[in-house]
Amino acid sequence: MAIITLTTDFGHKDHFVGAIKGTIYTELEDAKIVDISHSISPFNIQECAYILKNSYKAFPEGTIHIVGVDSEPSPENEHIAVLVDGHYFIIANNGVICLITSEIKPEKVVEINIPNPQFGSFPVLNVFVQVACHISRGGTLEVVGKPFDKLKDIKEFAPRITDGGNAIVGSVIYIDNYGNVVTNIQKSLFEAYRKGRRFELQARSKKINEIHYKYSDIINFNLEKNQRKGPGDLLALFNSAEYIELAIYKSDLNTVGGASTLLGLDYRDTITINFL
Amino acid sequence: MAIITLTTDFGHKDHFVGAIKGTIYTELEDAKIVDISHSISPFNIQECAYILKNSYKAFPEGTIHIVGVDSEPSPENEHIAVLVDGHYFIIANNGVICLITSEIKPEKVVEINIPNPQFGSFPVLNVFVQVACHISRGGTLEVVGKPFDKLKDIKEFAPRITDGGNAIVGSVIYIDNYGNVVTNIQKSLFEAYRKGRRFELQARSKKINEIHYKYSDIINFNLEKNQRKGPGDLLALFNSAEYIELAIYKSDLNTVGGASTLLGLDYRDTITINFL
Amino acid sequence: MAIITLTTDFGHKDHFVGAIKGTIYTELEDAKIVDISHSISPFNIQECAYILKNSYKAFPEGTIHIVGVDSEPSPENEHIAVLVDGHYFIIANNGVICLITSEIKPEKVVEINIPNPQFGSFPVLNVFVQVACHISRGGTLEVVGKPFDKLKDIKEFAPRITDGGNAIVGSVIYIDNYGNVVTNIQKSLFEAYRKGRRFELQARSKKINEIHYKYSDIINFNLEKNQRKGPGDLLALFNSAEYIELAIYKSDLNTVGGASTLLGLDYRDTITINFL
Repeated sequence: MAIITLTTDFGHKDHFVGAIKGTIYTELEDAKIVDISHSISPFNIQECAYILKNSYKAFPEGTIHIVGVDSEPSPENEHIAVLVDGHYFIIANNGVICLITSEIKPEKVVEINIPNPQFGSFPVLNVFVQVACHISRGGTLEVVGKPFDKLKDIKEFAPRITDGGNAIVGSVIYIDNYGNVVTNIQKSLFEAYRKGRRFELQARSKKINEIHYKYSDIINFNLEKNQRKGPGDLLALFNSAEYIELAIYKSDLNTVGGASTLLGLDYRDTITINFL
Repeated sequence: MAIITLTTDFGHKDHFVGAIKGTIYTELEDAKIVDISHSISPFNIQECAYILKNSYKAFPEGTIHIVGVDSEPSPENEHIAVLVDGHYFIIANNGVICLITSEIKPEKVVEINIPNPQFGSFPVLNVFVQVACHISRGGTLEVVGKPFDKLKDIKEFAPRITDGGNAIVGSVIYIDNYGNVVTNIQKSLFEAYRKGRRFELQARSKKINEIHYKYSDIINFNLEKNQRKGPGDLLALFNSAEYIELAIYKSDLNTVGGASTLLGLDYRDTITINFL
Repeated sequence: MAIITLTTDFGHKDHFVGAIKGTIYTELEDAKIVDISHSISPFNIQECAYILKNSYKAFPEGTIHIVGVDSEPSPENEHIAVLVDGHYFIIANNGVICLITSEIKPEKVVEINIPNPQFGSFPVLNVFVQVACHISRGGTLEVVGKPFDKLKDIKEFAPRITDGGNAIVGSVIYIDNYGNVVTNIQKSLFEAYRKGRRFELQARSKKINEIHYKYSDIINFNLEKNQRKGPGDLLALFNSAEYIELAIYKSDLNTVGGASTLLGLDYRDTITINFL
């Protein structure tokens, strides 16, 4: 039976997640439910998009992803079901899916229109769970709704190329559990414009000329401990999702702070890369 | 095999939840364990009661609910097992179950008295898990303990009817992940006294004359965006649990704040409804 | 199939845990994955060691424990796999496992050396998950790497015996969800040196002469409620992990505060016991 994943901003205290799981198990006794995250900041579709893009691929093809962020339906926020890259997504048309569909063309998109929907303030339970169980039982998207072609974008995800291809102006799209700052600049874009040149990455007053692949790459283990870089030092790296990330080596948010607080960088702030 | 759910104030950091799950899997290899919440505020039986009431029903009949909040046994806090509405609850007699048993008469209540209990500071592991596994294997409540008829109440859950049925004085019983404020006034009670009349709901200095069913009901999508109500505006609604809730549309606790902070409402504060 | 547990400092928001679970389910369709904790404070190996020691034993023998705290490999932080007490641990050699291996001799320890490892900043996914799946399929540690005998210690875990065996100088190794303060003094050590004598436990300016087994042991239920000790009162107990713990009865971190804040005790602070 296909896995059903949950990605929401419901948090871990309220009864919402428990009610969803109970309902799925009532409909599908052998369901396999996996939490991706319930700690998306309320209504933060950028965060949700970043987390969803970087976790869905790890699951087997055919997995059904329920996304419960900003999911109340309205004339401007349709409920949709999307089949893309072999995975099903049940989601509102608020832009979250664009981070995936901008890179991989969706096989099917439908606007959800199920008979006798229960209206109210909990559409993830009343609508999304029903659609997920339908797909899990082998049902098709055609039964769930009509074809839909108005997928919304999130503009913040696209970095700008400026100075005739000599600069990339990106922004902060995610701050992780360690306070590390993730930009919207992917490795592939960076390398396409870099063409082997030297570069300077500027974030606030800090300038960086090297991008690593591991956090500990800044440590020279041949030096004595007191002569090395170490906890508290800044670095840039291509993170495991292949985005450029600014990080503090072994950041402890309770003591030295993370890259976000140390650099004074928050969501939507600008990072610039100049090729030299 | 019956599902076993967990509702506790153990939080997500400590080893308690892991130890409970490991013990259940050791006893029941094919157990299906579902977390309802581990983020109840410590010893907050009101929160626990609200969360439990609004999640248990989603699970199949026969589900076994372990409730680990304020569960150290004492002469005034007996360990009990309750069969009500087709569900089993293993819990301390601290009032949590009353939110369910005040509406649905329990089929059986026993005071837990298992042979050779391990005493100590972790009764959820040492007692509740044993009882849950016993029930899961098809065991009866009679084996677990003797009939018990002294279920405690939580007084805060009952709103008062005043002014000869022309007013309801309720209070805040829950604040959710979005900062929305849930009162103890259920839709059924409200409608029974309203009898079709107009009304005024007062919470601190705010007055509200309408109760919605969806958060987005306050938005008039026919208006231009800059002329509409939107994020940051206050509304009242019957929430998905059918309690009256005061909410901020798309509240972001990091920026505009939630209804709780904006209205200055905390647990036990008063909300009054006058019928006109 | 063996259970795979996860103990990390990844938190509950990021995509890391979802990606790990998806990858395991892709490799092992019928995997049973259990979260022990994802809320270890970043890079806090003491916390991790305490949580791991006190949860692993609850799981069946043969369980595979993935530990993702401070896990980037370096010349000073090898990836290792350890078989001890019938359980498998996949972990970095940062001292976390010493809390278990200092009491129970490990059956096997290997330094992980898998062919064609994917390098990068997410070794728990790229290395640990592969090793866990190998073991889960019945693979041996010998295939995973070569024997290793340089397990690191965490010095903070050993209390000092002073004054010719008349005193124990311990320290705070864990602060739990209720703000209770756990010391590194185990019941077995305490009793071995106590030899039936009276004692005085000193924590900052507080002195305690009794150690309980349950939180409610300080309450005399024969007295009227207003004459009893109750919420807010301090006690010492042997906690369920058999360490000496300083606790506030029914501490509420939002109102009265926990033992940690009330006593002014933080990680590594000293607690002294003098035998009289």
